[in-house]
Amino acid sequence: MIITSTKEELLSKINIVSKAVASKTTRPILECILITADSDGVRLTANNLELSIETSNIEAQIIEKGSAAPEAKMFLEIIRNLPENNVSIETDDKNNITIKSGKSEFKIFSLPGEDFPELPLVEKNFKYEISSAMFKNMIKQTIFAVAIDETRPILTGELLEIKEDCFNIVAIDGFRVAFRTEKIENKNESINVVVPSKTLSEISRVLPDKEDEIVSIYFTDNHALFETNQFTMVSRLLEGEFFKYENSFINEHTTAIEVNRQELLSSIERATLIVKDMRKSPVELKIKENFLVITSNTDIGMSYEEVAVDFEGDDLEIGFNPKYLIDALKVIDDERITINFMSALSPCIINGIENGNYKYLILPLRLKN
Amino acid sequence: MIITSTKEELLSKINIVSKAVASKTTRPILECILITADSDGVRLTANNLELSIETSNIEAQIIEKGSAAPEAKMFLEIIRNLPENNVSIETDDKNNITIKSGKSEFKIFSLPGEDFPELPLVEKNFKYEISSAMFKNMIKQTIFAVAIDETRPILTGELLEIKEDCFNIVAIDGFRVAFRTEKIENKNESINVVVPSKTLSEISRVLPDKEDEIVSIYFTDNHALFETNQFTMVSRLLEGEFFKYENSFINEHTTAIEVNRQELLSSIERATLIVKDMRKSPVELKIKENFLVITSNTDIGMSYEEVAVDFEGDDLEIGFNPKYLIDALKVIDDERITINFMSALSPCIINGIENGNYKYLILPLRLKN
Repeated sequence: MIITSTKEELLSKINIVSKAVASKTTRPILECILITADSDGVRLTANNLELSIETSNIEAQIIEKGSAAPEAKMFLEIIRNLPENNVSIETDDKNNITIKSGKSEFKIFSLPGEDFPELPLVEKNFKYEISSAMFKNMIKQTIFAVAIDETRPILTGELLEIKEDCFNIVAIDGFRVAFRTEKIENKNESINVVVPSKTLSEISRVLPDKEDEIVSIYFTDNHALFETNQFTMVSRLLEGEFFKYENSFINEHTTAIEVNRQELLSSIERATLIVKDMRKSPVELKIKENFLVITSNTDIGMSYEEVAVDFEGDDLEIGFNPKYLIDALKVIDDERITINFMSALSPCIINGIENGNYKYLILPLRLKN
Repeated sequence: MIITSTKEELLSKINIVSKAVASKTTRPILECILITADSDGVRLTANNLELSIETSNIEAQIIEKGSAAPEAKMFLEIIRNLPENNVSIETDDKNNITIKSGKSEFKIFSLPGEDFPELPLVEKNFKYEISSAMFKNMIKQTIFAVAIDETRPILTGELLEIKEDCFNIVAIDGFRVAFRTEKIENKNESINVVVPSKTLSEISRVLPDKEDEIVSIYFTDNHALFETNQFTMVSRLLEGEFFKYENSFINEHTTAIEVNRQELLSSIERATLIVKDMRKSPVELKIKENFLVITSNTDIGMSYEEVAVDFEGDDLEIGFNPKYLIDALKVIDDERITINFMSALSPCIINGIENGNYKYLILPLRLKN
């Protein structure tokens, strides 16, 4: 293989596929980036067997077709540090790869391109389209609520659900449910798959932050494929039945408040300054008339916060793991939110007011007194 | 003690004294910041027994005199997160400290101010004055060359030397010598002290980056005191005799090159991309006619770089730990530098051309062939 390209082009594309390079593995080939130069053009590919990313053709000239798989980190570092924008990449018959730019020359060992694992084949039957920036935001607004521990593996992923004209993303860890919905064009198909949160998080990191850039999504029984005009990503799906979340979001309540999201967030963040273990030390919310009083009390000291709220229903004292409140309050787009309560031992439900596309449920912690 | 001040003022001063707070210690009081409100005003102090920092009076109103010593990190976090700029701080007779701002209130435990270790007394006999930005730069240009290992404790510090009208800072780790000099006003005093590099590094982090801000420096047998109009810092000195560095910088050479500093730096940085252990894999410099060729050769691969130089003397092949070259090339102010060589087994000496106030010596590594 002999190709020429530019440092800029290579760098931007290596940065994308790098998200699918394996970091700890017993198969060295998974730590490599595959460079392919064939009659279709030049492409970069990475594949950690959970997630694979392949760029569309990059700007490059092919002098001799072929392939090679240099170690990803070393390849990235060399390209990043080249002295000039013009780069040539050349392999020899011993799988050495020579990279030249200006008066710099590197020769590093690589693995044969043929050893690189083939990408999963995904038949593109039905296409769903969504704005890239929107999809990124949907992931950000829910992904923190996936389960960390692996006792129920299905909950370490996020549910991607298409029902009628709604595209929903849902995460559940046993203590809370994060739900985000968006309208989508659909021809009566129904989709219900669980994508590992790790690959979703990598996907959201490489998706462009542009409203008008479109991601096309395809599903099979075992894979989800995400396509932009820059690259294609294929994620493995998790097997199993996701939690039936719909019935968790009941509409009844005995206490309801409406509050400025940022004010509530800042107050709870301050209250946690003196909390070392958030699972063991709840912050306490006292709702009475038009005030929400937030207190915490630990070995380190005490804190007291007052936030103005619009209030209806009964007075209430309830405790929460503050992290669960903070996680959601940080990502909701709305300026004002409502929180509905049933009792000190029942979950509360947070809704954004303006957009109406986000719901979040948290179980309370029992207060000590 | 009852005082009022502003979040902004407290925060900027806590950030300064924080550099002298102990991080791992068996004496909890050393992890605290002392707040003193007396007839002189309000001051903050920290003291880890190696370095102490005391602010000059801060902008604050004293309602009741007194002192308290809250844990530094918690105090900083609370002040940083307060909702409004006005802050009141109040202690009770159980050493609790209450911090109020807007509708936020914190009560945290603190230690009695009386338990705080007294600052070392430094008699201000003779004052040396230097620009703060200049002193910071002198530290930055030399401190990387102090010894890391503690077999010769004196070399873990930097020599601060005043001789005639020169103020010199010198660091030596057994493989290299970094020397920086500056003119200073002096009345025939002679100073020769060694300041621990750790405290020098903290000092340079809090010194303002301004040419026209002056640092006054005082010395005693055991301490150095650095004073600005914002704060006073006192560092312990290291005991022992520093290495006689003067004779290392000989003027003779058999090969000399003049080269662009940034070009040489970039080339050596690239050559080290394929070097995992810099102590074991030297980069090789081949000097011949008007070219410097830099090569490296490791398990990972090979690299080749060419840099144009002005050259006089004999051809030469010599090996170096590339880190030692990079460290100095990064901090020299001059655009062009000279490097003088005697032989492949003798140290080389780097000088900046324009400023003439910096000298750097490195021992070579033996090449394998």
